[in-house]
Amino acid sequence: MRWLTLPITSPDQRYLLAAISRQKQLTKPAGSLGELEHIAIRLAAMQATDKPSIDKVWISIFAADHGIAEAGVSAFPQAVTAEMVKNFVQGGAAISVLAQQHQAHLEIIDVGVASQLTELAIIHQKIALGTANFLTQAAMSQAQLQSALQAGKEAVNRARADNSQLFIGGEMGIANTSSATAIACSLLKLSAKQLTGAGTGLDSLGIQRKAEIIQQALDKHQQISATALPLLQHLGGFEIAALTGAYIAAAQQQLPILVDGFICSVAALLAVRINPNIKPWLIFAHCSQEQGHQRILEDLDAQPLLNLNMRLGEASGAALAIPLLRSACALHAQMATFEQAQVSQG
Amino acid sequence: MRWLTLPITSPDQRYLLAAISRQKQLTKPAGSLGELEHIAIRLAAMQATDKPSIDKVWISIFAADHGIAEAGVSAFPQAVTAEMVKNFVQGGAAISVLAQQHQAHLEIIDVGVASQLTELAIIHQKIALGTANFLTQAAMSQAQLQSALQAGKEAVNRARADNSQLFIGGEMGIANTSSATAIACSLLKLSAKQLTGAGTGLDSLGIQRKAEIIQQALDKHQQISATALPLLQHLGGFEIAALTGAYIAAAQQQLPILVDGFICSVAALLAVRINPNIKPWLIFAHCSQEQGHQRILEDLDAQPLLNLNMRLGEASGAALAIPLLRSACALHAQMATFEQAQVSQG
Repeated sequence: MRWLTLPITSPDQRYLLAAISRQKQLTKPAGSLGELEHIAIRLAAMQATDKPSIDKVWISIFAADHGIAEAGVSAFPQAVTAEMVKNFVQGGAAISVLAQQHQAHLEIIDVGVASQLTELAIIHQKIALGTANFLTQAAMSQAQLQSALQAGKEAVNRARADNSQLFIGGEMGIANTSSATAIACSLLKLSAKQLTGAGTGLDSLGIQRKAEIIQQALDKHQQISATALPLLQHLGGFEIAALTGAYIAAAQQQLPILVDGFICSVAALLAVRINPNIKPWLIFAHCSQEQGHQRILEDLDAQPLLNLNMRLGEASGAALAIPLLRSACALHAQMATFEQAQVSQG
Repeated sequence: MRWLTLPITSPDQRYLLAAISRQKQLTKPAGSLGELEHIAIRLAAMQATDKPSIDKVWISIFAADHGIAEAGVSAFPQAVTAEMVKNFVQGGAAISVLAQQHQAHLEIIDVGVASQLTELAIIHQKIALGTANFLTQAAMSQAQLQSALQAGKEAVNRARADNSQLFIGGEMGIANTSSATAIACSLLKLSAKQLTGAGTGLDSLGIQRKAEIIQQALDKHQQISATALPLLQHLGGFEIAALTGAYIAAAQQQLPILVDGFICSVAALLAVRINPNIKPWLIFAHCSQEQGHQRILEDLDAQPLLNLNMRLGEASGAALAIPLLRSACALHAQMATFEQAQVSQG
């Protein structure tokens, strides 16, 4: 797994400065496009160009099941993971609709769904029929962790080969907020109670029970090192590890990353702990309604673009932010300067 | 001006209930699409249809100058209003770029720019070469107010004739945050200091001076009735009155309205005070950085979709929200139900 810590190049400072200068010349009060100006400037530096663009977007959804689901931590049965993968392929899921609306390439990777999906037109990289229940043992072996991280890297390789200009990761996996919450608690040194949320829609009693189960798991694994890779192995999910690997690989390949919701932000947090230089390559799409998300975004100094009280996953929040990135690029490239338009300055 | 208080039909309750029911059947945890669910449900009721859509969008930008500009309340000279109108037409302004990106129809209406623009391909409804300075007299006559409101209504007539499914109003007018702030202070019974913001980019000293000037104007006109039409006449701008008229006419014609930033929200507040039944027809696009905007949105019980620290006007914030409305519609229409996709429910 040595590739995880290989160097990450910083976004290009020359293009960053040139973009800052251009934004000041465009026909609008300086700063009046708010976050869109920051996004255009950051993308110019990441893409090392005067006129960044986000025409080609790649979305990889990693699907996997979780042993912890048997503890009853989700409002939905485990079968939903496989059922939703079929729904993604058939075009009926939220991310299917949004990917089509925004002309993004959408691929689904089975990294560990708990049933055979061989008949589906998806990418088959099943590591196991779900993780082990981390209440009683490590969620996965080290070899399995390595495979999951590698699956993420391979998705980025495909995105790069297709000349994509933005990488979006997404996830599907019943019970994966429990896994993500356990990891985040360990990384941020918080109790399960502080971070546990409703996931797909637990009531307050359900949330309390879920927090107790996660706390049990944290207590059971307290002897392991509170660093990213051991935590991923003991408390993780295959899709969370794949996202972590994908984010690191994307930054290594200088591909801007748009981060979705709670689960993806935990993967981003893991990626930052493994290789801190990834940070300038991350754009955060939204703050979800999942209780722990705000806390994780704060730890990452993230300024999410949207806050629409969503809590769906599937990269849906990131997909909604695609047009904002495209607007930022279009405004940066196409607006007239004060000089061009002969508009007086303040 | 009797048309302003003619009845406004409520959005159709049957379609509202049908849309709520459909949202619960779509393959996602109930409520997990957050604000997008509310938007889809509201649009279904406004358009009286099972499958709302926002394919055709109409943007009317009203441009006008303000006598108060001579008091030095803006960071930009008055000439910028006319210069920016040219920039809109030439495609170099933010709204030009965004309208093209989102395939929205964009029209510019001169309701009172302080110079002749007869050579430009815009709609010519100039009422005067700017309003009078409301520090010393009423900004406009009653006849002028009537013409401005009517210009707004006519824009909506054009939008309706073109079968537009969404009306967006925008504004351009150096010093118009001063006019809007003065009106909002009167309507909300607040001091100028509480609401005055940076506009196009004043520093803190400039904001303080602007607040003093606005307070002077409020004191001068304190004898007038603190109701919408007298306030519009004494403190308003032609573009603010046009927006107010447009919003009322759009609701009367059952055309959903997407409200832009601070100035437009003040026009929406005026419209609600004139004809309260307009309220369910208003969708608020964003919360701007202009200091008083949040306060006005609260008074309108508005839940703005975006918060990107913008403060540009020109309908730019509303244009950015168009894809979110389209996503809400696409998800509502195209997602599979649990039954269709054979996905288990929680």
